[in-house]
Amino acid sequence: MWGGRFAAGPAAIMQQINASIGVDKRLYAEDIQGSLAHAAMLVAQGIISETDGAAIAKGLHQVKAEIEAGNFEFKTALEDIHMNVEQRLKDLIGEPAGRLHTARSRNDQVATDFKLWVRRACDEVAGETRALVAALIDRAEAEAATVMPGYTHLQPAQPVTFGHHLLAYVEMLGRDLGRLGDARKRLNESPLGSAALAGTTFPIDRQMTAQALGFDRPAANSLDAVSDRDFALEYLAALSILAVHLSRLAEEIVIWMSEGFRFIRLSDAFTTGSSIMPQKKNPDAAELVRAKAGEVIGLMVQLLIILKGLALTYGKDMQDDKAPTFAATDTVLLSLAAMTGMVRDLTPNRERMRDACERGFLTATDLADWLVRALGMPFREAHHVTGSLVKLAEDQGKGLADLGLAQMQAIEPRITDAVYAVLSIENSVAARKSEGGTAPERVREAAAAARVRFLGDR
Amino acid sequence: MWGGRFAAGPAAIMQQINASIGVDKRLYAEDIQGSLAHAAMLVAQGIISETDGAAIAKGLHQVKAEIEAGNFEFKTALEDIHMNVEQRLKDLIGEPAGRLHTARSRNDQVATDFKLWVRRACDEVAGETRALVAALIDRAEAEAATVMPGYTHLQPAQPVTFGHHLLAYVEMLGRDLGRLGDARKRLNESPLGSAALAGTTFPIDRQMTAQALGFDRPAANSLDAVSDRDFALEYLAALSILAVHLSRLAEEIVIWMSEGFRFIRLSDAFTTGSSIMPQKKNPDAAELVRAKAGEVIGLMVQLLIILKGLALTYGKDMQDDKAPTFAATDTVLLSLAAMTGMVRDLTPNRERMRDACERGFLTATDLADWLVRALGMPFREAHHVTGSLVKLAEDQGKGLADLGLAQMQAIEPRITDAVYAVLSIENSVAARKSEGGTAPERVREAAAAARVRFLGDR
Amino acid sequence: MWGGRFAAGPAAIMQQINASIGVDKRLYAEDIQGSLAHAAMLVAQGIISETDGAAIAKGLHQVKAEIEAGNFEFKTALEDIHMNVEQRLKDLIGEPAGRLHTARSRNDQVATDFKLWVRRACDEVAGETRALVAALIDRAEAEAATVMPGYTHLQPAQPVTFGHHLLAYVEMLGRDLGRLGDARKRLNESPLGSAALAGTTFPIDRQMTAQALGFDRPAANSLDAVSDRDFALEYLAALSILAVHLSRLAEEIVIWMSEGFRFIRLSDAFTTGSSIMPQKKNPDAAELVRAKAGEVIGLMVQLLIILKGLALTYGKDMQDDKAPTFAATDTVLLSLAAMTGMVRDLTPNRERMRDACERGFLTATDLADWLVRALGMPFREAHHVTGSLVKLAEDQGKGLADLGLAQMQAIEPRITDAVYAVLSIENSVAARKSEGGTAPERVREAAAAARVRFLGDR
Amino acid sequence: MWGGRFAAGPAAIMQQINASIGVDKRLYAEDIQGSLAHAAMLVAQGIISETDGAAIAKGLHQVKAEIEAGNFEFKTALEDIHMNVEQRLKDLIGEPAGRLHTARSRNDQVATDFKLWVRRACDEVAGETRALVAALIDRAEAEAATVMPGYTHLQPAQPVTFGHHLLAYVEMLGRDLGRLGDARKRLNESPLGSAALAGTTFPIDRQMTAQALGFDRPAANSLDAVSDRDFALEYLAALSILAVHLSRLAEEIVIWMSEGFRFIRLSDAFTTGSSIMPQKKNPDAAELVRAKAGEVIGLMVQLLIILKGLALTYGKDMQDDKAPTFAATDTVLLSLAAMTGMVRDLTPNRERMRDACERGFLTATDLADWLVRALGMPFREAHHVTGSLVKLAEDQGKGLADLGLAQMQAIEPRITDAVYAVLSIENSVAARKSEGGTAPERVREAAAAARVRFLGDR
Repeated sequence: MWGGRFAAGPAAIMQQINASIGVDKRLYAEDIQGSLAHAAMLVAQGIISETDGAAIAKGLHQVKAEIEAGNFEFKTALEDIHMNVEQRLKDLIGEPAGRLHTARSRNDQVATDFKLWVRRACDEVAGETRALVAALIDRAEAEAATVMPGYTHLQPAQPVTFGHHLLAYVEMLGRDLGRLGDARKRLNESPLGSAALAGTTFPIDRQMTAQALGFDRPAANSLDAVSDRDFALEYLAALSILAVHLSRLAEEIVIWMSEGFRFIRLSDAFTTGSSIMPQKKNPDAAELVRAKAGEVIGLMVQLLIILKGLALTYGKDMQDDKAPTFAATDTVLLSLAAMTGMVRDLTPNRERMRDACERGFLTATDLADWLVRALGMPFREAHHVTGSLVKLAEDQGKGLADLGLAQMQAIEPRITDAVYAVLSIENSVAARKSEGGTAPERVREAAAAARVRFLGDR
Repeated sequence: MWGGRFAAGPAAIMQQINASIGVDKRLYAEDIQGSLAHAAMLVAQGIISETDGAAIAKGLHQVKAEIEAGNFEFKTALEDIHMNVEQRLKDLIGEPAGRLHTARSRNDQVATDFKLWVRRACDEVAGETRALVAALIDRAEAEAATVMPGYTHLQPAQPVTFGHHLLAYVEMLGRDLGRLGDARKRLNESPLGSAALAGTTFPIDRQMTAQALGFDRPAANSLDAVSDRDFALEYLAALSILAVHLSRLAEEIVIWMSEGFRFIRLSDAFTTGSSIMPQKKNPDAAELVRAKAGEVIGLMVQLLIILKGLALTYGKDMQDDKAPTFAATDTVLLSLAAMTGMVRDLTPNRERMRDACERGFLTATDLADWLVRALGMPFREAHHVTGSLVKLAEDQGKGLADLGLAQMQAIEPRITDAVYAVLSIENSVAARKSEGGTAPERVREAAAAARVRFLGDR
Repeated sequence: MWGGRFAAGPAAIMQQINASIGVDKRLYAEDIQGSLAHAAMLVAQGIISETDGAAIAKGLHQVKAEIEAGNFEFKTALEDIHMNVEQRLKDLIGEPAGRLHTARSRNDQVATDFKLWVRRACDEVAGETRALVAALIDRAEAEAATVMPGYTHLQPAQPVTFGHHLLAYVEMLGRDLGRLGDARKRLNESPLGSAALAGTTFPIDRQMTAQALGFDRPAANSLDAVSDRDFALEYLAALSILAVHLSRLAEEIVIWMSEGFRFIRLSDAFTTGSSIMPQKKNPDAAELVRAKAGEVIGLMVQLLIILKGLALTYGKDMQDDKAPTFAATDTVLLSLAAMTGMVRDLTPNRERMRDACERGFLTATDLADWLVRALGMPFREAHHVTGSLVKLAEDQGKGLADLGLAQMQAIEPRITDAVYAVLSIENSVAARKSEGGTAPERVREAAAAARVRFLGDR
Repeated sequence: MWGGRFAAGPAAIMQQINASIGVDKRLYAEDIQGSLAHAAMLVAQGIISETDGAAIAKGLHQVKAEIEAGNFEFKTALEDIHMNVEQRLKDLIGEPAGRLHTARSRNDQVATDFKLWVRRACDEVAGETRALVAALIDRAEAEAATVMPGYTHLQPAQPVTFGHHLLAYVEMLGRDLGRLGDARKRLNESPLGSAALAGTTFPIDRQMTAQALGFDRPAANSLDAVSDRDFALEYLAALSILAVHLSRLAEEIVIWMSEGFRFIRLSDAFTTGSSIMPQKKNPDAAELVRAKAGEVIGLMVQLLIILKGLALTYGKDMQDDKAPTFAATDTVLLSLAAMTGMVRDLTPNRERMRDACERGFLTATDLADWLVRALGMPFREAHHVTGSLVKLAEDQGKGLADLGLAQMQAIEPRITDAVYAVLSIENSVAARKSEGGTAPERVREAAAAARVRFLGDR
């Protein structure tokens, strides 16, 4: 009658779709933290007795200890973490347990628990992000003068330094830290005391619970407080952008590891072999980090869809807010750690990078700029003249610096042999001293500044 | 150095991000099925000896038995299901185990395993879909003549029957069955024998393994065979559309259960209460089914993103194809079962539905049609006249049938008292006999036809 | 050879896929603003002459005037807004136009233009959001004491006031304003002067251009500055969350407008009729606002996918950043305006809302709370007793207040007739005085506070 | 009052959000086609007179002619294409125009129009897909024996031929054709005659209109027929998968064009230059095709979100079905054409491809296979031995074929000089004769077969 798979009938199906304990048990610490704050407030306001309050607090600490010791039996029949904790509390302390839920509902309880969890997750992700920032800055300082081709459209564009390139990711991650910080700050209003949706008739003190839980203030509207999941959405959006950043670096690692580039090598710790091809060393970790962006974006999309068009206030649809948030957090933490590992592990092949700069006419822009500076040529004209020189060199299978002065003068008679200085890779890089530019001295300054800006080093 | 969370260093991080055994152990049966077919072919082609082939087959059956008995230890260090099975095979039979991987690679092996899994999932989802179709048809036949307001824009539009409404979902699910069938048929080409990516130098017989595994033919191009995950994408797209259908019915159940409508009741088996409000009976199962569409769509988006812009052939990114496919399958099977349960469980409140038909001027279109038929009025003009009559009735707080003939004639003198017949709800429904229309006889015919079309009943 | 549709051959196809002028001409003002700042800086730094600088400035103003007068011919052959403007400048002033592009590239130019545009869009969207906030607060103050059922799971939960409900949306929109503000602040770093990707050899002053364009500072890394589109992603994420908020209110409007609820009426200005059913008044504007959330989310997903796995620095893929950003902006501005219109237009049906409070045992929680307060019963027990009383009333087809004292005492003997006071809807609402609760006095305070918090009124 | 941007007040906002004519005018031909079929049926069934029918048909043809001549003024005040056409018909023929809308509604009319459009779009996209298939097969035949490294993880794996690689895409596109065909077939049921939602009281003949419009049959359920948009979803899903395929080839083109690979060259027709770097030739068209997958996926997500949780039957949300469908169609057609152009335009650099095969130990698998075949070694052991040989060669900076026999025998004494034959690139490729393998003869057979399978050539 129910199809073959669910032979157990409706009750079993309902339990399977309805129970959230398999997911929300991760909230146990936050749930107990919230209950402790709530109970203390009920005592302070005279809503429950000091004796009951003390029994509740003691009992809750014991429940927590049992969970952390692995001695707690989570029961699906009790649906969720809230009921599992409360039922165990009742087993332990009897009647006073029944007074804990005075002046609150699972609606404000779960909103509080989940916010506390996301708040902590913001901090954890920020911590791992800073670990990656530190690895990148260390590397960037070491490679501040290592030249490599800078690319646009994956075509060689102008010489840059490897350190400069790595610091680009530091900027991205710095913005990620900013987003995580803003999300954390914005979410920091306490839902507790909103009760089911309308507030309560008990003389509660929401300021007290808010403060006890580290919130900046109580949420201003009880209906909003129990139906709001902005904090998860904003957090998932921040993780999505962060994951996109990681995927870009991962793509570059895959390309740099390719036979055509060979700009870096990863040790065996971050590569794997093949079951059939004995020669392979595959950059698996980078590929997986690249893929994970897809997961994080998909999880954010999931929650946006769930909340879209949902009538106020709490709907059971919202129960599916936690699984994607937990999954995205785990995935991003793992991706960050794997990327930190790769950044610390990789060996740059400075010779290959340097050699690659000799191909692709990377100093053509320097030549054009020289025509502007030395000959007063408008840039557009200089660009045109340089294009002709590039074509000439290309036809002859040479680099720009390999053209003779006479050959150059055939195209633009005013060119002097001073031009050769700007055609060297090292000079090109050294000359880009504009703020934020790739000159090694700028890169070193930028690395030092990034340490202060993002890691608080002084 | 690696951030606080991954104190174990690079090896541990790599294992954590790289190992797929936690996910792909669900492929154990398919993996062994594929290996049995491959080994039999190697024997038939004289690539390995009959003795080795027999040892391999016996060993594989034992591995399968151990897994199904719960006696198998899955090892993360062995990365994936393929290596776990092969290693255990080696423990059991020694050297011949090393011959099993001749002329294949994990690349074609995993493609084969995963295709077999998705093929079976298509069948399972189709089976549960048919269970829901059966429940809907049963209900539709019972309620073929139960009138209720038909809605557009959630505004009352014209009377329909509840059975007719339920059959709309049968059509949607019928298309879902079609999509699942097409996806199943299209995926049914065997990757096995593509080896790593280029085919193999051994004289294998791909027709033989294809046939043994129930595939229609070998996949035509070895590079495509190991980099193709279309079958998962197409399957996920079919599930997404199916999940959207379920979400629409779920939304309607939520609305029908609301105090303003009360068209149906669900038993305690599919509702839950509140921790604070003692009077609540919430349609949790319907809300959760509604939410699940978000998950399924998010999972499809995940895999599309992973595959977008991925250079051929196999990339490790593709390892993340299975988790979303497994998760979407579980979620859709659960949603289908929950919906089947609700459809079988619900009690329609025929009186409330009938009463609701009296509000909202549901037979206004019948009146306009009558003006066209009886008076030869162009429809546009009839629409206008009817609009005036509706306004008159609304201003007087009446239904259309409550207007006196004289009142009607004041607006259109040619109206006769024959008009009252078309203003009755039952007559309105009975008159919509056009093919696919809501007349009870049509609904009964449609239900009978749907049984044949979708359930193979005759 | 190119398929039937593109008879014109490769050049035509390339132009069609490559040219962005159809989209990016919306950046004309920002493009000219950026060029003016750049030219002024080139003069100040002695890189171009004052004469040239003056000619450029005059020419650029003329170009802008031509565009705004509708006299400018945008040419697809010139690809994008940058080349269209520069070419026209050259027509107007000749050779000096060729000096404008000194020390910059289209890469930093487009990043600058687009950032300026998004910055302004943040302000515009914030402005329209505030208009909606103002409409909601006005309404909330007027309906601070209008009782209606509060819902969870779309089931009646507890009485609230309509004003309180509307203020929930003010909180959501307030967070949206916060996100827009944070995004605006974070993006406010100037890419200009990054040139193609590596900085420039010219002695430019990036502080000067940053300041002239209202940026807080120059972006710190030239490679990042030309490959970063975080600002668009973060903005689109903020719009997505905002659009989800609007979709929730839109869903409620659709439900409130339904025959089963009839809590509000919208005038003809925001409803439409039917081509066939003369009686219809459909809440089209609300439905469309609800749908638009899908569009905004889809557009954000588009840009996330485009940027995922993109190697540094600029790739042509990034050209497709503008169309989704422009479209999402237009859609959100329109949705906000339509919602503001509906909030101002709607007429609440206070009688229907009040009547609906009498059904659904909305004061059951008040009864349970009374049992706790008056009898010292643990809440869990009070919840249980109240459940029995609800069941009794339901079986008798009564409301809770219609039960006789003896009937109540049969279930809990200690109940006194003081209980009846808490069973009144008005008392229930008035008693929820907890911070953020629904008591009319709290709602009025919250409305006043919201004016100060979000509209700067004092 | 409405915010600054919408000074015109509510009516203007409503028109702006509600009117669809700017989008749905693309349905004009389908709308008129549907109306012609409907009118002919009304005449045949005696519902309207032959005279009226003739006037309507003549008028509709004139309207179509006016639109196609560019003489038709689309009016926003008339909302949509249906009303624009009908109003113009009325201008032209007067009263009979008012009879056209008998027994139908805009709900079945738009479903019919849109289905006809999507059906035609399926054919158009299939046509352009076949053009690309033809280009790929042509190329594949020409390059059937051109060796290049085959990659997994973007690491050199085994030698393949360029023709073989291109045929992998032919398989993908072949499946796309299958999906488009299935979608087309499944959608081919006529909504016309479902009227608003419930069918009609007029004695219409739905078989007749279905046949006239090329549908296989009438849709079976009127409620479903007006609320179903599966056909657009399934079509968008097929386009998304197709766009992912194109994005993979685009990524490869970008990589093949990079300095590190230089496997192909694109002419100026499909590359662009830089405004600052005179040497650049960027593969813009490939990058844009890669990006377009993001757009198509985003558009599909949009429509899935819109339909998720939408109560039956028609809701105005569904008006936003057309814009994403039209946009995805345009984008995919353009992407296909651009890709066809690039495939026809590219020049393979056979020498570079061949040279690249010499790096990366591409024949290591051949060596392992030889150990199995010649020495009867189990594959796992052969894999291990080969790994040692690769390591030896790598340490000495040699290729496998450069190792002396004695060196090899030091690792595995049974190796004979017969081994050298399998170490040659050409032999490796030629030996992979398994079905679907990369041996040139197989590639030529596969190309010929693909012509028959996908292009109907014989």
